[in-house]
Amino acid sequence: MSPRQIEVSEPREVGITELVLRDGHQSLMATRMALEDMVDACADIDAAGYWSVECWGGATYDSCIRFLNEDPWVRLRTFRELLPNSRLQMLLRGQNLLGYRHYNDEVVDRFVDKSAENGMDVFRVFDAMNDPRNMAHAMAAVKKTGRHAQGTICYTISPVHDTEGYVKLAGQLLDMGADSIALKDMAALLKPQPAYDIVKGIKDAYGDVQINVHCHSTTGVTQVSLMKAIEAGADVVDASVSSMSLGPGHNPTESVVEMLEGTGYTTAVDLDRVLKVRDHFKKIRPKYAEFESKTLVNTNIFKSQIPGGMLSNMESQLRAQGAEARIDEVMRMVPVCRKDAGYPPLVTPSSQIVGTQAVFNVLMGDYKVMTGEFADMMLGYYGASPAERNAEIIEKAAAQAKKEPITQRPADLLAPEWHQLVSQASALPGYDGSEEDVLTYAMFPGVAPTFLANRAQGPKSVARTEAQMKAAAEGQANALAGPISYNITINGVSHSVAVEPA
Amino acid sequence: MSPRQIEVSEPREVGITELVLRDGHQSLMATRMALEDMVDACADIDAAGYWSVECWGGATYDSCIRFLNEDPWVRLRTFRELLPNSRLQMLLRGQNLLGYRHYNDEVVDRFVDKSAENGMDVFRVFDAMNDPRNMAHAMAAVKKTGRHAQGTICYTISPVHDTEGYVKLAGQLLDMGADSIALKDMAALLKPQPAYDIVKGIKDAYGDVQINVHCHSTTGVTQVSLMKAIEAGADVVDASVSSMSLGPGHNPTESVVEMLEGTGYTTAVDLDRVLKVRDHFKKIRPKYAEFESKTLVNTNIFKSQIPGGMLSNMESQLRAQGAEARIDEVMRMVPVCRKDAGYPPLVTPSSQIVGTQAVFNVLMGDYKVMTGEFADMMLGYYGASPAERNAEIIEKAAAQAKKEPITQRPADLLAPEWHQLVSQASALPGYDGSEEDVLTYAMFPGVAPTFLANRAQGPKSVARTEAQMKAAAEGQANALAGPISYNITINGVSHSVAVEPA
Repeated sequence: MSPRQIEVSEPREVGITELVLRDGHQSLMATRMALEDMVDACADIDAAGYWSVECWGGATYDSCIRFLNEDPWVRLRTFRELLPNSRLQMLLRGQNLLGYRHYNDEVVDRFVDKSAENGMDVFRVFDAMNDPRNMAHAMAAVKKTGRHAQGTICYTISPVHDTEGYVKLAGQLLDMGADSIALKDMAALLKPQPAYDIVKGIKDAYGDVQINVHCHSTTGVTQVSLMKAIEAGADVVDASVSSMSLGPGHNPTESVVEMLEGTGYTTAVDLDRVLKVRDHFKKIRPKYAEFESKTLVNTNIFKSQIPGGMLSNMESQLRAQGAEARIDEVMRMVPVCRKDAGYPPLVTPSSQIVGTQAVFNVLMGDYKVMTGEFADMMLGYYGASPAERNAEIIEKAAAQAKKEPITQRPADLLAPEWHQLVSQASALPGYDGSEEDVLTYAMFPGVAPTFLANRAQGPKSVARTEAQMKAAAEGQANALAGPISYNITINGVSHSVAVEPA
Repeated sequence: MSPRQIEVSEPREVGITELVLRDGHQSLMATRMALEDMVDACADIDAAGYWSVECWGGATYDSCIRFLNEDPWVRLRTFRELLPNSRLQMLLRGQNLLGYRHYNDEVVDRFVDKSAENGMDVFRVFDAMNDPRNMAHAMAAVKKTGRHAQGTICYTISPVHDTEGYVKLAGQLLDMGADSIALKDMAALLKPQPAYDIVKGIKDAYGDVQINVHCHSTTGVTQVSLMKAIEAGADVVDASVSSMSLGPGHNPTESVVEMLEGTGYTTAVDLDRVLKVRDHFKKIRPKYAEFESKTLVNTNIFKSQIPGGMLSNMESQLRAQGAEARIDEVMRMVPVCRKDAGYPPLVTPSSQIVGTQAVFNVLMGDYKVMTGEFADMMLGYYGASPAERNAEIIEKAAAQAKKEPITQRPADLLAPEWHQLVSQASALPGYDGSEEDVLTYAMFPGVAPTFLANRAQGPKSVARTEAQMKAAAEGQANALAGPISYNITINGVSHSVAVEPA
């Protein structure tokens, strides 16, 4: 037996995208980190030599106005000011922007323009269905601003997903002008061999297109996947500084840099700076401990195909119905519903839509009751599915939702809405007359009114305070949070007692 | 530019050594896990298809008699009984056996014989100085029993260590009859490229010798190193089930198995069984939380060359002298002392010996006072160093210790001692007349008398009890660690009250 050979790309400099300011804390602590806990790290981040700094988009916009009373646009402008030498990067849900529905194209244009104007450089555009038509308009809008438009492949596993399909999707994204391709592995499903095959497939098919690889670390295999992706030619890989890494988060930045030593692949990253960033967030992380998951490594998803967040969601739905015991039935139902829906990737919002329908099917009988969202997905209102949908279920969906199935791009059905959004936003107390405020209203019409009304009160961190941290360290965190009243019986006599820290 | 190629070994089955019963808990929880917390996992471990199950040796012997009132030989026999289909594996410190000094060859023979007789199959024999002469007798003793003798390379980084040197050391181990070679990376220093180069170098030089690779995970790079080692031809890699992995521990077993899917490399591991093992230890781990380190990833060692355990040791020595502030000086002194000592790997006991001398140098002036151990190391009493030692310091050591430098194998200076050990052990209350008890006395003469006297009381777990776990979960664990002052209002009258455990 003679050794086989694999082709390894030429030695070269590999870029790193630092995730700590966005997906790092989104994945580890439910997007709760306040801007004030990030600003002191920015000088070191800016000088560390990253290819880009992801710092906005995803769930941060929602979290800013829902939990932190922070204006997301102020956050973006602050990063622009504090990171003058860095490419700022955001995650954008294609036609959904940062909200949870499809928007009319004009809203997409306005949102992208304002993001660029406020300082965004790199737009990573994705769609939960991997339907290129849901990314096309956002990509074109980015191109018009002259900024970097990154087309995204959401990686998933199913009987209809293979390397060839992903390479073809990359081609569609390049045809719409993508400046680079992101291979996005939001569920830590991407194993080393497919990482190598997909990256190499894209390079072989389309030449020297820039490929960025984004992996979560939950399954414990993806740092190896990053290595194999680099060997196959990946240009940039994503990582989060070690003190904000692992578990549902990402592979540690320092480790990704160090693993390349001697391989011929290098980075421009200054590790001394990265270690300062690490030390900063090492102090910050405990302040958000209550938002953290306890799971460090879990490979269950390779078998169940069900991401951790989706599982806990279904469990709480069952619990609300007193039906916790039926979780195994639901887990067997998920692949059925996913197949019926044409094997969408399971990522927000498709994971919730499929999971909730699986719960309904188990509790009430197969498709006896369909959620509005699942019916919409069956009818094409979220875009095309990777595979054919079940015709019988499409028929039921049409009957229940009283809607026709569609095949065109969903946003083509949307009437112009910008002027209406402006007039609705204008009526809100606290509206400052800016397009940014209109966009905030457009993204989250339910939350924006309260946020705009209270914005002047300034940011409200949900982190634990120094005093709370100290108390917790002393083991008294919950022992005496405030005055507590007891009825105490001493020697047969009842006393009303109030206790508080001295 | 055309893609370069690297040679990758033939597709084949890769073995896995499961570490959870020994190094897993040794690294994560200071070797404190009681046998009772392992027995219920043994049926699944035994059926999981591992190449071997590491379950004895290292610090477990010491911990059994020092902390757990467990007879280590009972532990070994229990594993033999509960793991009838598995190769049992142990870590043996060459001429040091499981103690902290060199033993006469007859003691080595007796220890190895008894270990084999009680059920041990695979002996991983190492020496902290990488001096083959310190491993030779133990290896020969293993060969005589017909069991598997694994010769070990301790991986370290220094100006005198390179691939060529490690390949040469492997050759010396093979010359003494090693059935396989272990590449032992106890400090998580082994990066992917040297992992590949060393394994390939050994295979190229000596043909199809079995190579086992053992990495810790502290620096976050070594799962990639395992992958590259496998590509270079490694036959077996070590891992610990995910619920007992990462941090100062090892890469997760499930992740190591999963990462190989589609690569052509396979394992014989039954993941369903591994997941049961995982679930078992997921419940056990919190019981030992107080022994755990908080560090998950730390790449500092690549720069400082100082393992985490060594650093905390030096810090506590400085603190005892009220000189915490001088840690930076000590960290600069460590490389000086290590160079003077001829660049020994920094692993127990060399790490403590070099670290303590560095502290002495900073506090009292360079080599003004030398520890007995450092003097011994300078004089050759721990074996040959990888490089020349500093002649001037050797002279000082000889003067201070009033000993001559030696060049022969240290154990050659030791007189027969078995009969003396037998007679000393025989005098101890609780001695049961077995050779195993003599060996326990020989390993730890300071601790054995108390252990033998109290052995009949049976194992004493240091794990938290169910009740303590429950209390901790309710936030009351440390709520009453000492007297706490409250202001308590009873029926409207305020009282100053102090509360402490009864």
